[in-house]
Amino acid sequence: MLVRKMPIFNANQLVKIGTKIFSAVGVPLEEATLVSEFLVKANLVGHDSHGIMRVIQYVREIEEGILKPGAKIEIVKETNSVVVINGNWGFGQVIAKKAMEKAIEKARGSAVSVACAFNCNHVGRLADYTLMASKNDMIGMAMVNAPRSVAPFGGKERMLSTDPISFAFPTNMGFPFFVDIATSVVAEGKIRVMLHKGEKIPLGWIIDKDGNPSSNPEDYYNGGAILPLGGDDAGHKGFGLGLAIEVLCGVLAGAGCAYMETKRGNGVFFEVIDVNKFMPVEKFKNEVTDLLKAMKSSKPRPGFKEVIIPGEPEHLTQRIRLKEGIQVPERTWEEIKRIAEKFGLDEKSLLGDICA
Amino acid sequence: MLVRKMPIFNANQLVKIGTKIFSAVGVPLEEATLVSEFLVKANLVGHDSHGIMRVIQYVREIEEGILKPGAKIEIVKETNSVVVINGNWGFGQVIAKKAMEKAIEKARGSAVSVACAFNCNHVGRLADYTLMASKNDMIGMAMVNAPRSVAPFGGKERMLSTDPISFAFPTNMGFPFFVDIATSVVAEGKIRVMLHKGEKIPLGWIIDKDGNPSSNPEDYYNGGAILPLGGDDAGHKGFGLGLAIEVLCGVLAGAGCAYMETKRGNGVFFEVIDVNKFMPVEKFKNEVTDLLKAMKSSKPRPGFKEVIIPGEPEHLTQRIRLKEGIQVPERTWEEIKRIAEKFGLDEKSLLGDICA
Repeated sequence: MLVRKMPIFNANQLVKIGTKIFSAVGVPLEEATLVSEFLVKANLVGHDSHGIMRVIQYVREIEEGILKPGAKIEIVKETNSVVVINGNWGFGQVIAKKAMEKAIEKARGSAVSVACAFNCNHVGRLADYTLMASKNDMIGMAMVNAPRSVAPFGGKERMLSTDPISFAFPTNMGFPFFVDIATSVVAEGKIRVMLHKGEKIPLGWIIDKDGNPSSNPEDYYNGGAILPLGGDDAGHKGFGLGLAIEVLCGVLAGAGCAYMETKRGNGVFFEVIDVNKFMPVEKFKNEVTDLLKAMKSSKPRPGFKEVIIPGEPEHLTQRIRLKEGIQVPERTWEEIKRIAEKFGLDEKSLLGDICA
Repeated sequence: MLVRKMPIFNANQLVKIGTKIFSAVGVPLEEATLVSEFLVKANLVGHDSHGIMRVIQYVREIEEGILKPGAKIEIVKETNSVVVINGNWGFGQVIAKKAMEKAIEKARGSAVSVACAFNCNHVGRLADYTLMASKNDMIGMAMVNAPRSVAPFGGKERMLSTDPISFAFPTNMGFPFFVDIATSVVAEGKIRVMLHKGEKIPLGWIIDKDGNPSSNPEDYYNGGAILPLGGDDAGHKGFGLGLAIEVLCGVLAGAGCAYMETKRGNGVFFEVIDVNKFMPVEKFKNEVTDLLKAMKSSKPRPGFKEVIIPGEPEHLTQRIRLKEGIQVPERTWEEIKRIAEKFGLDEKSLLGDICA
């Protein structure tokens, strides 16, 4: 689909485009495909900030030598229930997928397992990994930390990362049930989107460099900070969760904490629990399904149409995008083409066999 | 200290008072002491809502046959890394302490362990249990669910509990570092306190029975609901965390979910990670200490004096109360005396040998 301005691709085409560019940059084919698949999966469910646009960032990081495609994944510690991985700065997706596979394998034996990783680049959406566990009838839990962006409760300097946490559980709901949230009031991507749109953000998302509340997204990028989940009233809660995640990902996983100037990439803490070691999987799934159905049956508050289950919006978006394709914003598409060209792929050779 | 109106006791005296009353009600001495110790520990750190005043509730529950002192703790499932406990409706503190002891013991072997409990009464403060792990140089994690009090995001009916979560980590800070928060915007106890004081609560804590925001604490008790952490902007986050905790405590632990009409007591999900299996404990402690010191060094925002580390306020209160004693509000004290009297302990026999 060679629409000039706002191209629309199907998922398959986008994966091939990503794979082609990464391959041109010298990424081993298997990694190029895997990373592209992860990115397009994010597009499919509506999280474009974690989608194909990341190709631009990753290629830049490869050029800078920060991201090392094909890096050897080293297991530095391994027991029946624990694995600690040195990712040697390969693709975060490659490292995190390996870590979750290990955790699932170990949980099958030990009922509960932990997999940590350090020297790991951006892993993308956490739900991609926790859903690997739930697809195996296990409970997945994931946390990562990253460079600083969030102020501690009452502080005005960036000291924590958005410290996301994800859970996924097997159900019979007909869509994947997962939680995937930053423990800050908002993820950085949403501020960037508003900046690009030239719109104000709600008060309570950020403070400016002097620690004052601001609705101007630029203030974040001029030395401001994101606030922890809970706001002025309950921000100690988001701060507490963020600290716990910094300890698990920064200290226990050995990836360094957000407050450190040298911090980069994602510290990874994964955990898997094998449901089957506790109770029959079908009983578990039925009871979780009953729980979620009870929520869905809840009468909405004035101003709300219905109660939305975590995972539901992504499922609805995916249904639409599988049918209608994924729209890539003009600016993103221009940048992707520019990068492809730099590595010898003009638009024709980039799209030729893909969008014939 | 027989002050007539607002009695002040030291911790030791309060434990003895609790023990005496429970014993008079027929609680085995060991349990009477243990539960009283847990309650007074909460008073010491400033959480009076979980303190000695709970004697009144527990005695009532014993009379009603809901709480069964001396109940046998049954282990219904046990592996190297997992234990599931049927508490047979004994004291929550007795059951939860046993569960955490088991989890610590198992983590020493398996690096990571899970302990669940059902048929379990009110366990009190979660930090009491996660701190058992951190005192053993391990990481403690705890969640419980309870009868419904919180609306799902966008809904107007009570469907979840306040679903608290706690983490504790060993450090060299000189005070115990722990997180212990409800995943609702506020715990029920704080609403009750404002009700008793006759004060308004901040908008954003609760909705009334029609789903409208309210600053009148009475509206909660007249069919209203507490809101999930995050408010109108980010309430899907508190809702997501609450759901995850309902699954772990209600389904996996087998204690039933908050939305069920039959739900009572606490469903318990504990997890322990042995730091030593990942890295030298001293290195871990030093790095967590550095993290917390970095937070303390953060410049405060306008309107804040300093950044407070989770666990710090409790430590400061405990220092004061160890010196100055614990003040018991007149109304609470009158009720405690009334209950003691019902079981044959007049004020003199209650306090005689304790406060001589």
